[in-house]
Amino acid sequence: MAFNSRIKIKSLLESDETGHDVTIMGWVRTKRSNKNVSFIALNDGSTIKNYQAVADPNLIPEDILKKITTGACIKVTGEIVQSQGAGQQTEIISKSIEILGEADPEKFPLQPKKHSLEFLREIAHLRMRTNTFGAIFRVRHALAFAVHKYFNDKGFFYIHTPIITASDAEGAGETFRVTTLDLKNPPKTDKGEIDYKEDFFERETNLTVSGQLEGELAAMALSEIYTFGPTFRAENSNTARHLAEFWMIEPEMAFFDAEDNQNLAEDFLKYVISYALENCQDDLVFLDQRASEEDQAKKVELRSEMGLLERLNFVVNNEFERITYTEAIHILKNSTPNKKKKFQFLIEDWGVDLQSEHERFLVEKHFKKPVILTDYPKEIKSFYMRQNDDGKTVAAMDILFPGIGEIVGGSQREERLELLTKRMEEMDIPQEEMWWYLDTRRFGAAPHAGFGLGFERMVLFVTGMSNIRDVIAFPRTPGNAEF
Amino acid sequence: MAFNSRIKIKSLLESDETGHDVTIMGWVRTKRSNKNVSFIALNDGSTIKNYQAVADPNLIPEDILKKITTGACIKVTGEIVQSQGAGQQTEIISKSIEILGEADPEKFPLQPKKHSLEFLREIAHLRMRTNTFGAIFRVRHALAFAVHKYFNDKGFFYIHTPIITASDAEGAGETFRVTTLDLKNPPKTDKGEIDYKEDFFERETNLTVSGQLEGELAAMALSEIYTFGPTFRAENSNTARHLAEFWMIEPEMAFFDAEDNQNLAEDFLKYVISYALENCQDDLVFLDQRASEEDQAKKVELRSEMGLLERLNFVVNNEFERITYTEAIHILKNSTPNKKKKFQFLIEDWGVDLQSEHERFLVEKHFKKPVILTDYPKEIKSFYMRQNDDGKTVAAMDILFPGIGEIVGGSQREERLELLTKRMEEMDIPQEEMWWYLDTRRFGAAPHAGFGLGFERMVLFVTGMSNIRDVIAFPRTPGNAEF
Repeated sequence: MAFNSRIKIKSLLESDETGHDVTIMGWVRTKRSNKNVSFIALNDGSTIKNYQAVADPNLIPEDILKKITTGACIKVTGEIVQSQGAGQQTEIISKSIEILGEADPEKFPLQPKKHSLEFLREIAHLRMRTNTFGAIFRVRHALAFAVHKYFNDKGFFYIHTPIITASDAEGAGETFRVTTLDLKNPPKTDKGEIDYKEDFFERETNLTVSGQLEGELAAMALSEIYTFGPTFRAENSNTARHLAEFWMIEPEMAFFDAEDNQNLAEDFLKYVISYALENCQDDLVFLDQRASEEDQAKKVELRSEMGLLERLNFVVNNEFERITYTEAIHILKNSTPNKKKKFQFLIEDWGVDLQSEHERFLVEKHFKKPVILTDYPKEIKSFYMRQNDDGKTVAAMDILFPGIGEIVGGSQREERLELLTKRMEEMDIPQEEMWWYLDTRRFGAAPHAGFGLGFERMVLFVTGMSNIRDVIAFPRTPGNAEF
Repeated sequence: MAFNSRIKIKSLLESDETGHDVTIMGWVRTKRSNKNVSFIALNDGSTIKNYQAVADPNLIPEDILKKITTGACIKVTGEIVQSQGAGQQTEIISKSIEILGEADPEKFPLQPKKHSLEFLREIAHLRMRTNTFGAIFRVRHALAFAVHKYFNDKGFFYIHTPIITASDAEGAGETFRVTTLDLKNPPKTDKGEIDYKEDFFERETNLTVSGQLEGELAAMALSEIYTFGPTFRAENSNTARHLAEFWMIEPEMAFFDAEDNQNLAEDFLKYVISYALENCQDDLVFLDQRASEEDQAKKVELRSEMGLLERLNFVVNNEFERITYTEAIHILKNSTPNKKKKFQFLIEDWGVDLQSEHERFLVEKHFKKPVILTDYPKEIKSFYMRQNDDGKTVAAMDILFPGIGEIVGGSQREERLELLTKRMEEMDIPQEEMWWYLDTRRFGAAPHAGFGLGFERMVLFVTGMSNIRDVIAFPRTPGNAEF
């Protein structure tokens, strides 16, 4: 007979029916006992809420009761009754309890007390059993599902672009080499160079930094596509914002110009956040509370103006501000922190790249809402962005969020072969290797656009966490590939 | 003003309304002209069906009409009217046509004739503009969405397990090394070994071969999870069944035993195939026709007994056969091909691994339906599979599909610490590196199970294609990392 006869705690909590017998299974969060009764708080991960099991020592053997300690896994069969205590509508009166797995209180690291996030990162294999990380990973799931649902409902097609790639066209930073060569004794050419013809793919290969270029190929056939896959940066940045391995969502749309792109991105972000608000209420209420407690520990001037839920609702219910880079420079140049030399990087001339402090000023102080910044100088943007008629700017957009900074980067793509190849020449991008990319401009080109969303930044925003290592199950950072 | 004013051809075909003006955009498949009129078949990738645009040479300038060649991208604005011709209900009478991108007929490789799959693989950046590959990638999308929908509806959580990993616990074949070391001049230790302390992660790292072990960690907190991500094998196999980079779906469930696992896998496979049958009718009808034409070209004895749609419906509507390995050996030993020595590998003794010819015999000749093979000898399976009471077998399952062979492999996992570590010792699996895996058996262990589905094998089965390189956008195989 199959083992899985349980009802999930989430389903149990959705009904106020009583009088029937059920089986639940899960991990013990706490046990309170007196000589007449034990109350066990059980969690099975389906919801942040525990379910209370009541155990009568006359019915449940003492050697079983003794093993019911924090972290143990148990199976409880009994009757659902109205709860006498506060905090729950119903509870289960245990008729039998089976210990599925013990958790020695001397050794189990997750005792019911507050653990630091740093400590929990070291036991990432267990941290999902805490309220905070259970909530984060349920919210992460909901956000991922919302991404797929949004695009599917709109008729976009999900494309798996390659992870291992020979193209580093973006030049978007350092990449990880992928190889099967013997590092101790690699084959060499006559000239003493590494002989990549002997490598698995018979050429140099890296981990992808973006699926965009391949995504464009698919969009020029299926018209609206998106990717959702891992991307990699071998940057030696040990910050709360950087991962060496992270997940990106990259929609690409034929027949979209820069404005269509902005409209889609704003609608998409609002949809995904709304989806979490509707489907993760319990988890978000908990995370809201958690964020507010964290905030109280900060100096007054560093505290957030809005709570987590308030911030999420604000983003969903307000139009994003859309301004050009040129307008932004004007605002920043005349801003108080610029005039009082409070910015680390003072804004003097048009053409400079914006730093995080500038983006935060625009979003958090000046507009107090998400900002879509458009039409950046071509010198500070990628070769594939569509050149505007002014000869100076490109049809780029960055979307800036409070607390997060850039959450989306995108552009209309340059579909005009001559302008594209001229720009590639200027920027030293090798054209022969990218014959396939250029082919989409040779044969049946069309205006098209797309953007990239760093998925972990989205999870960070929605959960109100502050370190990106806390929103991915097993983070990869310099010096860290544990688990 | 935003550019994207078009209606998708799929939406246009869903209505029989006439008399209104619309704009459509897409790629020209064919143009037939006489001196009074041109008929243009336009495809925008939203559906396999083309839409007919009618162009009157008195209205559309000659220099525009001339550029409307196969592969060109155009924008047509006009009135929807009832079609006079056969093959379509409505058509568009063009009031204006704009050329978005030309396609020089002398150079565009996709002329309207039959191209070989081998040739199309070389132009994978353009092949999605053909009927066959458009259909394949729309079906692939639908299958991926069905996977997410199935698990989301059941309350599973999607977990992103790491791609870069230091564990090669499965020993599941050769892996790709991931490194930032300078291959020409790598740092070495005093003993002359490569000094991986200098590498990005300060240790040896590879591309993952499976997310299962990390998936188990998450299941022991959230109870039901699944992964859907890329996995890698550096095997030098140039076959129609192997990719170096492919996508896997790996659900892991706490509180599931072997039978629960089988029930879930069967239900899941049927759901996903049903979803495609319901949502990809036009594409599957086309692929069914295509497969049947391919079949006609084969020798009679090699032809399929069922057409594609028939086969998909058969799988959805019939119970899978469930037999043990021991029963399978009995059947195979007494089978005609074994007795007549037609098998390349003759079945003599219990304990041998089954070859593809044996699996196909069971599925295609003996049972004529999908087979769930269970309880394999422990010697031919992985260390983490739960040991049965007979001391000889483990609670493994493989699901075998007609034409595909193994599509799912899974097992109940060994949750008993002592038995697990004993097996690891016997199989030389290092325990220190896997402290985190063992911890889930130390603290709050529970019966649990899971399985892995090779996504491309599923796409292969549902599309009726025969080479796995044709069901992933940009295949990675030995010597091939183009695009």
